[in-house]
Amino acid sequence: MAKKETKREGIPQTENTVLIGRKPVMNYVTACITFFNSNEKQVTVKARGRAICRAVDTVELLRRAFIKDLEIQNIAISTEELVRVEGGQKSNISTMEITITKAEPKQPQEEE
Amino acid sequence: MAKKETKREGIPQTENTVLIGRKPVMNYVTACITFFNSNEKQVTVKARGRAICRAVDTVELLRRAFIKDLEIQNIAISTEELVRVEGGQKSNISTMEITITKAEPKQPQEEE
Repeated sequence: MAKKETKREGIPQTENTVLIGRKPVMNYVTACITFFNSNEKQVTVKARGRAICRAVDTVELLRRAFIKDLEIQNIAISTEELVRVEGGQKSNISTMEITITKAEPKQPQEEE
Repeated sequence: MAKKETKREGIPQTENTVLIGRKPVMNYVTACITFFNSNEKQVTVKARGRAICRAVDTVELLRRAFIKDLEIQNIAISTEELVRVEGGQKSNISTMEITITKAEPKQPQEEE
């Protein structure tokens, strides 16, 4: 999976980001795993509005079922201002960013 | 508003907690404001599953519109295991806790 360079106002896409939408949670879990497997140290999971609970589901499923030594570095919440195309009405939407890292794997100890 | 002493497995209710459900966001914002107005220093907003996005909405609306000097002390996510009454099937649900505090008000400076 190549690095996504999504252009969204207010959200600079500098690091490896999984943007949560309306797809099944497993899709985003797979995206995170793919990033880690391509030797990325850190992945940011971003979501807005109702997708926020799916972002939490993604990270929790990832930690529970796939990457046991997952560490949550940071969770940030914020508000983004949207302007509707029709009418130009402003509305606010909550956003969330969860930054996760995979702990360095320890050297497996050989049994004697 | 009296301190809630809700008994829920896995969630110890020691401090002042606003548990997010399906009501409108403003209800929970009001609950938080009531806690702060009764001189509580710290309020914890808790939610499970789909209510998680409403928890974020609550804190963001509170910060944006009502308490400008609100500080987010901590955001924690976790998983709770539920057992269905019928059939006894286990299912996992994501949980979230946002701990917020109100910064101490500074002494107003008198204009000379």
